[in-house]
Amino acid sequence: MNCSRRITRIQKKLRRKKLDAILITQPGNRRYLSGYSADDHDISESSGALLIPARKAPVLLTDFRFQIQAEQETKKMEVLLYPKGLHALLKKLLPDLGISSLAFESHYTLHSSAEKLKSMCKKLSITLLPTSGIVEKMRQVKDEEEIDIIRRSVLLNEKVFKKVHKTIFPGQTEIDIALALEATMRRRGAEGPSFASIVATGARSALPHAVPGAVKIIKNKALMIDMGLVLDGYCSDMTRTFVVGKASNKYLKIHRLVRKAQLAAISRIRAGVSAASIDKTARDIIVKGGYGKYFGHALGHGVGLAVHEAPRLGGRNRAQLKAGMVITVEPGIYLPDWGGVRLENMVVVREDGCEILNQDSTWLDI
Amino acid sequence: MNCSRRITRIQKKLRRKKLDAILITQPGNRRYLSGYSADDHDISESSGALLIPARKAPVLLTDFRFQIQAEQETKKMEVLLYPKGLHALLKKLLPDLGISSLAFESHYTLHSSAEKLKSMCKKLSITLLPTSGIVEKMRQVKDEEEIDIIRRSVLLNEKVFKKVHKTIFPGQTEIDIALALEATMRRRGAEGPSFASIVATGARSALPHAVPGAVKIIKNKALMIDMGLVLDGYCSDMTRTFVVGKASNKYLKIHRLVRKAQLAAISRIRAGVSAASIDKTARDIIVKGGYGKYFGHALGHGVGLAVHEAPRLGGRNRAQLKAGMVITVEPGIYLPDWGGVRLENMVVVREDGCEILNQDSTWLDI
Repeated sequence: MNCSRRITRIQKKLRRKKLDAILITQPGNRRYLSGYSADDHDISESSGALLIPARKAPVLLTDFRFQIQAEQETKKMEVLLYPKGLHALLKKLLPDLGISSLAFESHYTLHSSAEKLKSMCKKLSITLLPTSGIVEKMRQVKDEEEIDIIRRSVLLNEKVFKKVHKTIFPGQTEIDIALALEATMRRRGAEGPSFASIVATGARSALPHAVPGAVKIIKNKALMIDMGLVLDGYCSDMTRTFVVGKASNKYLKIHRLVRKAQLAAISRIRAGVSAASIDKTARDIIVKGGYGKYFGHALGHGVGLAVHEAPRLGGRNRAQLKAGMVITVEPGIYLPDWGGVRLENMVVVREDGCEILNQDSTWLDI
Repeated sequence: MNCSRRITRIQKKLRRKKLDAILITQPGNRRYLSGYSADDHDISESSGALLIPARKAPVLLTDFRFQIQAEQETKKMEVLLYPKGLHALLKKLLPDLGISSLAFESHYTLHSSAEKLKSMCKKLSITLLPTSGIVEKMRQVKDEEEIDIIRRSVLLNEKVFKKVHKTIFPGQTEIDIALALEATMRRRGAEGPSFASIVATGARSALPHAVPGAVKIIKNKALMIDMGLVLDGYCSDMTRTFVVGKASNKYLKIHRLVRKAQLAAISRIRAGVSAASIDKTARDIIVKGGYGKYFGHALGHGVGLAVHEAPRLGGRNRAQLKAGMVITVEPGIYLPDWGGVRLENMVVVREDGCEILNQDSTWLDI
């Protein structure tokens, strides 16, 4: 991890904005800048915060449960414990460090916590400034070391998929398959799935967020598997849709239309084009095929330490893609009471095009 | 689910506080009041919000991905979609419903979202009021229907534990056991684990938040398993510590001390006693046994739709227990470099004592 280089960039930004420090609470940002990998149980049960002064070394703040992990993972960083909670520690620490202006992450701080922080800062005559997305913006563009880890994450995910794909038969349940995927991931060294695997048979594949059920795989109907894993902190995300048995003509037609939209979008991805225009390329093809209203989500999203991160590849994102961004390309068509087809691969945006991270070709070109 | 009765209670509270509506964003609260069970991927990727006007029927607001699920689960509730985001829909909906004062959940709303809500409400001349814990307070006291579901959740969790417990042998890894637990849970009808199962062997059992590793179970040393599942929305949570092989005298002594503390605490639980006093009963026994400083966490916590919810059974919570609360009783002793023993059961607070939900007695009284 290039944490110290990243910290230096943040400190430069702070000095430019005349801020004395920033408090990092978002778990992915915390990990990106410190190496400390604990996730939050949820936002109201934080596993720590990273305080980065503009002109001093950063400090990781956590509680006794995470002390050993924090010290091991952050290496040279100082770790301070807060037996009486984060705010009680900050009340002492901020004046000690001579901090008179503090930024915090507005997009990962609860309104109730921000209110407490506000009243504390007021008493200490510290100026408090909400910020949003400073670290996320840095995280959008990956360096080659990060891309290498993501590539390994994608390839491991494919290996897991292919191993389990071979064992699928009609009559097996969605849950059986989901469990086999997750067990295989963990046995092969993944930290775990990057999201709850989706395994959806028949008409259930039309629910974009189907939870695997005790439902038997139906012969000759669509089976959608959307899965990802975390390897060394970095996520993968892939969807395959296929038929166990014989595909109907309707299935083939819809599948081919989705694949056509995916390939067209991929062929246009390069640094400098807008996210919205890539979404439009895929969407136009599906609209022209007559299924426009059945493609109800954005074409894709960034992937990195989080499985969903910026940039969003959607119609309203006019931002230009940059070299080093890693994004999914996942058009889909969902017909209620019939089923859905989604195909998802991950690519790296390059100056002159894009690099497809996936090698698996199961049921793509049929 | 008694959603309509719960909604009526909230509406009465709103009218008493002269508020026109409340916006519920916390996933457990949303489920408690509507039946809609989708969880948030994380707080910044909400799967919906529940708008409860004081004098009109509630409306569930979500996006297209969750439409079918929301309509199926909420039954008679109106479901509205927000293709352009929650705030865009509220901007139209709040004036349409004649709402001129709105409460929101300060403890489950991001600072950045609250700022957007604030500026929108200002433009619409709507008074915005942060609230905290209104629904959580209701959720603390369970009705008999909820207690029945929790009882089934606890008993299923025990069945899973006992099935896997029989198959444990030295040399097997922590991950193997954790995967077997989670697979058995899901095959037997659980929605999933209520938290990532803890399986920790030897000295690793001294880390209160151990993540199962590719580490082999050590013969004649402590093995701690802390596990829970979700059944029909409700959580269970249980810890057993035992030895695969022969327990040392030191192990037996510590284990018996922890069990003694647990039993003493359970014998004092009834409506009207303070949470802090129950924590103290258990803690005093461990302190007297010479291990006070090795019991570093609170004695227990509430369990319901969330695996950790109010009330906290800790030294600083002076609130009185109420009949119908469901809590864990989980004293522990953790010796660095040696290991830990934690024993955890769940009980229902009753007027004249408590009802122990657990029936399993594996390695409790040894």
